[in-house]
Amino acid sequence: MTNDKRDLMNRLKTIEGHVRGVQRMVEDDVYCIDILKQTQAIQRALDKFNSLILAGHLNGCVTTAIRGEDPQERERVVTELLQVFEATSNL
Amino acid sequence: MTNDKRDLMNRLKTIEGHVRGVQRMVEDDVYCIDILKQTQAIQRALDKFNSLILAGHLNGCVTTAIRGEDPQERERVVTELLQVFEATSNL
Amino acid sequence: MTNDKRDLMNRLKTIEGHVRGVQRMVEDDVYCIDILKQTQAIQRALDKFNSLILAGHLNGCVTTAIRGEDPQERERVVTELLQVFEATSNL
Amino acid sequence: MTNDKRDLMNRLKTIEGHVRGVQRMVEDDVYCIDILKQTQAIQRALDKFNSLILAGHLNGCVTTAIRGEDPQERERVVTELLQVFEATSNL
Repeated sequence: MTNDKRDLMNRLKTIEGHVRGVQRMVEDDVYCIDILKQTQAIQRALDKFNSLILAGHLNGCVTTAIRGEDPQERERVVTELLQVFEATSNL
Repeated sequence: MTNDKRDLMNRLKTIEGHVRGVQRMVEDDVYCIDILKQTQAIQRALDKFNSLILAGHLNGCVTTAIRGEDPQERERVVTELLQVFEATSNL
Repeated sequence: MTNDKRDLMNRLKTIEGHVRGVQRMVEDDVYCIDILKQTQAIQRALDKFNSLILAGHLNGCVTTAIRGEDPQERERVVTELLQVFEATSNL
Repeated sequence: MTNDKRDLMNRLKTIEGHVRGVQRMVEDDVYCIDILKQTQAIQRALDKFNSLILAGHLNGCVTTAIRGEDPQERERVVTELLQVFEATSNL
């Protein structure tokens, strides 16, 4: 397993533990706002994870496709990137 | 356990399972964009969870505080709501 | 005009000027990323404006409705707040 | 002026008019939530504008840089794309 992959896996395990922590908070009737702060922290951790995945994707698949000779493949990776961007906006 | 609490717990268990699913995707070197689509789906599931928590909070603690006689407590719940809102924007 | 209203108007005039600035950038074929940075700055300025409107709303209409005796009016303001919150998420 | 540029300019003029419309709403003391709905609509219009700018950027500058022979230039466009993505998340 590469270092990058290990880092991604560790981040997901941390996020999974964080989600279990929120389950305990709900069970223990913790104050709503304190629960919200934790779920918002999980969402930021997922944003960071997504950013790392996207970095690998841009340097890997996207670069290969755009340097390649298949115009349909180039168009495909660009369309996918726009969809990812739009999903992070409210579009 | 109330129905609302059970629903919140079920949502968190589903999210936890979803996070473990993404771990398997990373281990299996699934295509980056397919991983991103799953983590974005998890973020939307957390948005929905947050919305339910906030609904309970507005109908419970916030209503009690605002109908109460302590002006500092009223101010506190309003300040907290603004912080939650700002955390969902880019502020 | 109150100070709060004057502040809101000034923010909107600044945002309007900023949008006209982006029009000049597009006309002058400025580098795309520099344009994006400006439109994202406008969106953050709108987030800040929204936060001020929401603060006034919580301290004004929401407090009045929740302290009032009409349960339908109380429910209405809570439902509206949830819609505003959901529109800032991807819901 | 190309069709794409004309379309971008029209969108910005519409957004500018929309911002002026919100100024009139503030002046006329329109209900806060109705103001918020309009500013959120402006933010979605800016999201759509950003998406079009990004599409042009990916098909233009990014494709040229990645197909070019300068590794620093390739790295630069990838870094910029990640910054744009992170600015749309809460990162």
